[in-house]
Amino acid sequence: MMRGIYYDGTRAVYREDLPVPEPEDGHSRIRILYANICSTDKEILRGYRPDFRGIMGHEFVGIVDKTKTPSLQGRLVTGELNEGCGHCLYCRSGREKHCPERKVIGLSKDGCFAEYMILADHLIHPVPEGLPPEKAVYTEPLAAALEIPSMVHIDPAKKTAVVGDGRLAFMIAQVLSLSGAPLTVIGKHEEKLAAFAPFAQTRLIDSFHFGHAEDGVDEPPMDRIDEDTYEVIVEASGSPSGLALASRIIRRQGTIVLKSTYAGKLSLDMSHFVVNEITIKGSRCGPFEPALNLLQRGLIRLPQAQWHDLKDYEAAFASKAFKAGFRIAEE
Amino acid sequence: MMRGIYYDGTRAVYREDLPVPEPEDGHSRIRILYANICSTDKEILRGYRPDFRGIMGHEFVGIVDKTKTPSLQGRLVTGELNEGCGHCLYCRSGREKHCPERKVIGLSKDGCFAEYMILADHLIHPVPEGLPPEKAVYTEPLAAALEIPSMVHIDPAKKTAVVGDGRLAFMIAQVLSLSGAPLTVIGKHEEKLAAFAPFAQTRLIDSFHFGHAEDGVDEPPMDRIDEDTYEVIVEASGSPSGLALASRIIRRQGTIVLKSTYAGKLSLDMSHFVVNEITIKGSRCGPFEPALNLLQRGLIRLPQAQWHDLKDYEAAFASKAFKAGFRIAEE
Repeated sequence: MMRGIYYDGTRAVYREDLPVPEPEDGHSRIRILYANICSTDKEILRGYRPDFRGIMGHEFVGIVDKTKTPSLQGRLVTGELNEGCGHCLYCRSGREKHCPERKVIGLSKDGCFAEYMILADHLIHPVPEGLPPEKAVYTEPLAAALEIPSMVHIDPAKKTAVVGDGRLAFMIAQVLSLSGAPLTVIGKHEEKLAAFAPFAQTRLIDSFHFGHAEDGVDEPPMDRIDEDTYEVIVEASGSPSGLALASRIIRRQGTIVLKSTYAGKLSLDMSHFVVNEITIKGSRCGPFEPALNLLQRGLIRLPQAQWHDLKDYEAAFASKAFKAGFRIAEE
Repeated sequence: MMRGIYYDGTRAVYREDLPVPEPEDGHSRIRILYANICSTDKEILRGYRPDFRGIMGHEFVGIVDKTKTPSLQGRLVTGELNEGCGHCLYCRSGREKHCPERKVIGLSKDGCFAEYMILADHLIHPVPEGLPPEKAVYTEPLAAALEIPSMVHIDPAKKTAVVGDGRLAFMIAQVLSLSGAPLTVIGKHEEKLAAFAPFAQTRLIDSFHFGHAEDGVDEPPMDRIDEDTYEVIVEASGSPSGLALASRIIRRQGTIVLKSTYAGKLSLDMSHFVVNEITIKGSRCGPFEPALNLLQRGLIRLPQAQWHDLKDYEAAFASKAFKAGFRIAEE
């Protein structure tokens, strides 16, 4: 038996009667040390995955404890979320995370808010020498940030912006800042923006005045030429108004990367994007190896996490800390 | 005095009292031979440019008749629309067509539906040897099609589609087909689609069944994996329903190029584009030199144009021909 946080279709439940899982072929069992809470976990509690029943969580670091792959045995590891079918167009073309039949830890199969978890060997990434587990647990959100330069050319000579001042924006802004590009982070919260000051210019959203009463996407002041316009803007605010702002300060032929997901539809004047040849790029999970590389080299500032015991899951989910997670076991 | 079609702020007027223009420095005068009507010209008549007063038209071929640039004198030429200020961020970064202060022939300065027109020398492109003027007049719409491979990587090994069966779609489909990629053209009109059959597979939109009553953008059947999905889709239907269809048949991590402009807003579930990492790229005018190259080599099928005299401008604007234009002078 093991302890874990189980989603029963309605709510999260702390259980001590969960069976310790056994790895099937090509899979290994990981003893979880640390697991962090992502906003997706909170969305599950709001009904985002009504059909899911199982152990929650997908950001983790742990030690491989049962495996048929000798190189993994006993290794400190982290791992990717999406396990594809292995046969479809997406799995065969390097897009396993887009496999329509994929199983996702903590979203459609058992996740990491527990003492043990099973993961496919090819999704497991050993943590490099010298990177402690309480830092390696940030690999997954940093990888999501690294999906941006993986998809979009970041020209270090051109102005770049991030809209949003939350946890994902914090990772994204750091990754972009390592390109050397002049970077502006635009947010609503003066106290959150302070954390970005060491590596970016910061601006309060309120400081953008457009001379229009309404805040519609379709009235971009495209006569603003240099000041306050950007070649690449990453929208990571989690709010529809983030794209509205980005559409008004993107340069013609520029690229807006969308990282935010939110319920509901946006009303957009698509002709604005055609005439100004603007690119909109959706972006989701990203590559783990560059994330581990940057973490190991100490190039990424990490938020001070607030660690909880699994039993205290309600406090952990309710935490207003910049990052909250579970300390499940000692190394 | 010269003849021309003048937009007076309300309607097009045929005039014979227009002054023959004199070129300022860095500009040349072109005696127009042929000029084609674009849908943008018809939009002007519907009030698209209420502030414009002047000679209409922007697709042309002619002979340079007065210039200080010896290499242009007497040459058969065509030319680009957008004359920038030369000083702003966009003009300085190779994006003259996006200059906020740009002058555009037939839209904000005198155009080509007349016996003579002035154009900046750097926008003038000599027509290569052996390409007759009645073919060279198609350079501008073909260049707009070539903006697509200029912006987006077209992988000849991957399935590509064009939504739309009109004039612009005809140019776009031919350009894409020259990549060798398997190409499908999706349209509403069986008789128009027939023209695409020599270089593409054709499909009636009605042949796509999604198993849903509504046709919303936000219910893409992303479980369709190989059949009927495409890596790159160009939306050139001129209708909002074109993007709705494209969103349902685009592959995850695929690219939708928007060529259509239309009034009004679209209601979109942006999370669909984030989760599936779809790119949307607006695309407008394109490069002239590759267009002239392909035309000269006879690689592009051209619609049979219906030529009118300037006096018959009402019949020309009302024409249902695949392409209508003016024959203004003989070579």
